[in-house]
Amino acid sequence: MAERQYVLTLACPDSTGIVARISTFLADLGGWILEAGYHSETATGRFYTRQAVRASSLTIGIDELRERFGVIAGELAAERWALTDTAVPKRAVLLVSTEGHCLYELLSRWHAGMLGADVTTVIGNHPVLAPVAEMYGIPFVHVPVPAGDPAGKSAAFERIRELVDAQEPDAIVLARFMQVVPPKLCERWTGRLLNIHHGFLPSFKGARPYHQAYDRGVKMVGATCHYVTPDLDDGPIIEQDVVRIDHTSSAADLAMRGRDIEKAVLARGLQYHLQDRVLLDGHRTVVFA
Amino acid sequence: MAERQYVLTLACPDSTGIVARISTFLADLGGWILEAGYHSETATGRFYTRQAVRASSLTIGIDELRERFGVIAGELAAERWALTDTAVPKRAVLLVSTEGHCLYELLSRWHAGMLGADVTTVIGNHPVLAPVAEMYGIPFVHVPVPAGDPAGKSAAFERIRELVDAQEPDAIVLARFMQVVPPKLCERWTGRLLNIHHGFLPSFKGARPYHQAYDRGVKMVGATCHYVTPDLDDGPIIEQDVVRIDHTSSAADLAMRGRDIEKAVLARGLQYHLQDRVLLDGHRTVVFA
Amino acid sequence: MAERQYVLTLACPDSTGIVARISTFLADLGGWILEAGYHSETATGRFYTRQAVRASSLTIGIDELRERFGVIAGELAAERWALTDTAVPKRAVLLVSTEGHCLYELLSRWHAGMLGADVTTVIGNHPVLAPVAEMYGIPFVHVPVPAGDPAGKSAAFERIRELVDAQEPDAIVLARFMQVVPPKLCERWTGRLLNIHHGFLPSFKGARPYHQAYDRGVKMVGATCHYVTPDLDDGPIIEQDVVRIDHTSSAADLAMRGRDIEKAVLARGLQYHLQDRVLLDGHRTVVFA
Amino acid sequence: MAERQYVLTLACPDSTGIVARISTFLADLGGWILEAGYHSETATGRFYTRQAVRASSLTIGIDELRERFGVIAGELAAERWALTDTAVPKRAVLLVSTEGHCLYELLSRWHAGMLGADVTTVIGNHPVLAPVAEMYGIPFVHVPVPAGDPAGKSAAFERIRELVDAQEPDAIVLARFMQVVPPKLCERWTGRLLNIHHGFLPSFKGARPYHQAYDRGVKMVGATCHYVTPDLDDGPIIEQDVVRIDHTSSAADLAMRGRDIEKAVLARGLQYHLQDRVLLDGHRTVVFA
Repeated sequence: MAERQYVLTLACPDSTGIVARISTFLADLGGWILEAGYHSETATGRFYTRQAVRASSLTIGIDELRERFGVIAGELAAERWALTDTAVPKRAVLLVSTEGHCLYELLSRWHAGMLGADVTTVIGNHPVLAPVAEMYGIPFVHVPVPAGDPAGKSAAFERIRELVDAQEPDAIVLARFMQVVPPKLCERWTGRLLNIHHGFLPSFKGARPYHQAYDRGVKMVGATCHYVTPDLDDGPIIEQDVVRIDHTSSAADLAMRGRDIEKAVLARGLQYHLQDRVLLDGHRTVVFA
Repeated sequence: MAERQYVLTLACPDSTGIVARISTFLADLGGWILEAGYHSETATGRFYTRQAVRASSLTIGIDELRERFGVIAGELAAERWALTDTAVPKRAVLLVSTEGHCLYELLSRWHAGMLGADVTTVIGNHPVLAPVAEMYGIPFVHVPVPAGDPAGKSAAFERIRELVDAQEPDAIVLARFMQVVPPKLCERWTGRLLNIHHGFLPSFKGARPYHQAYDRGVKMVGATCHYVTPDLDDGPIIEQDVVRIDHTSSAADLAMRGRDIEKAVLARGLQYHLQDRVLLDGHRTVVFA
Repeated sequence: MAERQYVLTLACPDSTGIVARISTFLADLGGWILEAGYHSETATGRFYTRQAVRASSLTIGIDELRERFGVIAGELAAERWALTDTAVPKRAVLLVSTEGHCLYELLSRWHAGMLGADVTTVIGNHPVLAPVAEMYGIPFVHVPVPAGDPAGKSAAFERIRELVDAQEPDAIVLARFMQVVPPKLCERWTGRLLNIHHGFLPSFKGARPYHQAYDRGVKMVGATCHYVTPDLDDGPIIEQDVVRIDHTSSAADLAMRGRDIEKAVLARGLQYHLQDRVLLDGHRTVVFA
Repeated sequence: MAERQYVLTLACPDSTGIVARISTFLADLGGWILEAGYHSETATGRFYTRQAVRASSLTIGIDELRERFGVIAGELAAERWALTDTAVPKRAVLLVSTEGHCLYELLSRWHAGMLGADVTTVIGNHPVLAPVAEMYGIPFVHVPVPAGDPAGKSAAFERIRELVDAQEPDAIVLARFMQVVPPKLCERWTGRLLNIHHGFLPSFKGARPYHQAYDRGVKMVGATCHYVTPDLDDGPIIEQDVVRIDHTSSAADLAMRGRDIEKAVLARGLQYHLQDRVLLDGHRTVVFA
């Protein structure tokens, strides 16, 4: 549907002339900029940009573009930069447990051609959602994660690692997975591992956030899509939203109301990630939405 | 503007027939119900109601109504009940520090006849906002609260207690007061002492919530109006709201954006309180908005 | 999951003592009220109520309850009243065209047991969404509605009428159906025919609302779930919501952003309808949410 | 508080190399970009930018900067461009009628040093708000606008024109002025004349929008800040917002709820205008918020 784009993202120390440098480089190659975002983070003295270039406007191919831009990125002392091609499909693996609302949401979008990625595998620590994945024709693998059995748990996550890595996914999505991912895997998949937390972080970390919210008597509940780091529920936030509630809602009602927010926030956060709109600024994110 | 109403509020153990009992009592006296809220809290087995009765529809006066209803309240084992008369003006005292946006908001509403209370005194631990109160013709009392001087601080709060109690206020509002109120005063003024916290509680308790929010990289900031208890920022929440932000906002920007939410949330929360719409359910509130 | 309830709804002229009358009636039968909503509409002098009674608390069955309450409803001169049993499953028929996001949403909820109704049939004027319904195991009937052929169109809607009526549905949902339903059918299905309009009514009635929104340069777009009447897009509104946009969104982007709001608004509006939470007040609705 | 900035805004036909051209020009002068917004409007083939440059980083003054940039603007065939200096205070004139909430809001912000402009005069077609302006020490001029007297009305607006023009204001704000401004003045003050409409445009144009909203039974009401053009309520929209309501709200309640949204939307829209964040794209606005 959309035309082919090359998407350039870069983070580097801020200084005068960076925009001039990059835009002149692209203009000299005939690059037509479809969308450009820039951000100077005063607190950290760092510069971030994302630029979407019409592929057909360039006089050279992506490989040469990457090679040439690498020189500039080096001169700018870029800590991170990337150049991706929207014609190369992205790949996603979903990890689920027993609650299906996020899975339905992502598979519906995929089926309608609106996810921006192929969902290649669904992995569940319970079998209950297998029929949902299979209905959509997507392989479901059941990997039980035994509680109170460190060795068994470790083996389960080793199996998950193999399954995930075999897909070489651009996004690994904890779609209400309800298991703490081992630190080693968080690090292995850093920047590709997304979670939806059913609470408005940093409120209500950990287990049963809706019960915590009920007990605290808040007047809004929310959901948070974030990158996963070894620190539970403390990873960089990509997207959040809330919904207004009142005293008539029980903890179970909160969970029900919250589902709609969870799946919407996860879908938006994942879309930003898949479109290379999210750049890490330490513990914070720059999202060129 | 609005017609005279008697407002009945009651909290009691839930059982069959409470609504029938109360509504039959009021109907037998000719009571025309303008607004009625009921809530059964399943988790605690308690019942809450607020009823606004057109004063002119009743065949008896409020004193006799109060006396007669007291019998029913006793039979219902009500922990709390009240009958107030909207013809009796409410009174509010405001405590401020150096940030004026909440003070401007409440005084503007008062001046326009839309606060639902007389503001009888403004107390500040700094003198900077005195001209604002005085512009509106409201007495301002400067009570410095010395830092690092327990005896001086204690004396200051004793002075504040005297000033407040002399007004017999229905609401004591910490309108960005920025001082921790001593537990003894929290208890003395329980159910009448309101605070606006510049964070979406329970996130970002304590000092500098906007800096905490910036550091955490949240995508929305909020404000919370709550009753004050001896536990800092842990009192029952009356009202909350949020505003969407993004990576372009510095901590100072968050503070600026947050001001608009703070004053709106405080104004709504205070209005609910002054209209007897807030009933305490342990640590939570029932708000018949 | 939820316990069996009898849900009473009633609309009648307002007067003193209605609540007393109804609540005493229910209390005398042992009725435990799980949820009660009351509304007096001052502008029209009408009274509305919805009460959810725990079925097991009553000493009589629903048939006798209905018979006995009918006497009271008559005395109250009720224009409309109903008593429904949550143990009797509701039934829904969906009408679709080519856009699938609302269909996916409703079928996902149905599949997860969270719609509150059985979806018995999906009817499409295009065949493109047949695979979606079939994936969920729900019969899909393709009824082409020829453009520019009044007789053919009339025959198509006669066929749709037969298909719908054969299901005796509680809700007939235009889930982005994109066809104007003939007035005769609007009247036949009055109070059961729901539409999702992809605009914030009364803004942007009629065709291509997102293009209208783009041209007008609005800063938010919305969606509206409403009952369908013979006046296009003018039926009573059940639920609405909006999402913030800005100048970076093209008309196509608005359509994409709007889809998430549309499906959420439709799901909420339909749930209110299926739970008998919506009462008509002339052209307006009372929604005991 | 904020450091001195030069703010450059420009609108021109889109083509390759514009960003390179502008950013190279600024970089060559040592310009440190504090904030940069770019927008390519595909539908109209036009390009928009706003850049805030740290004044102290430039090697030349604003006059020379303006002169030199004028050459580039000419080459880019810019329809409009401007270079403003945040050290030059902006000026605003407010027009009011009888409702004061927007006036209180803007004067409070001005008094707290947070409006971003001096309010030099308040003009009212009724005298009732004179005390509010005077309390803040701002001149209030009462100019009655007689109804049903074309000549008198014309004279009144001629008087208003004189008063306004004498101030050479950057913003002329209809802060609930409730009078239709003559087309000739709309054109004279084009791009400087802002209105707050108490409805979510394009819904509920014209008189009594809250009554229209009540009658239509909408579930949210809103407010719209827009530039005024000779077409009533049809000018380019700068900012909008909504608040959720339900059936319990009378038309008077909607007006009360709406006031909070009106003043917040007006304050935000005016701030965008005063900070040169709003560029006109035909009938639409580009807002670099």
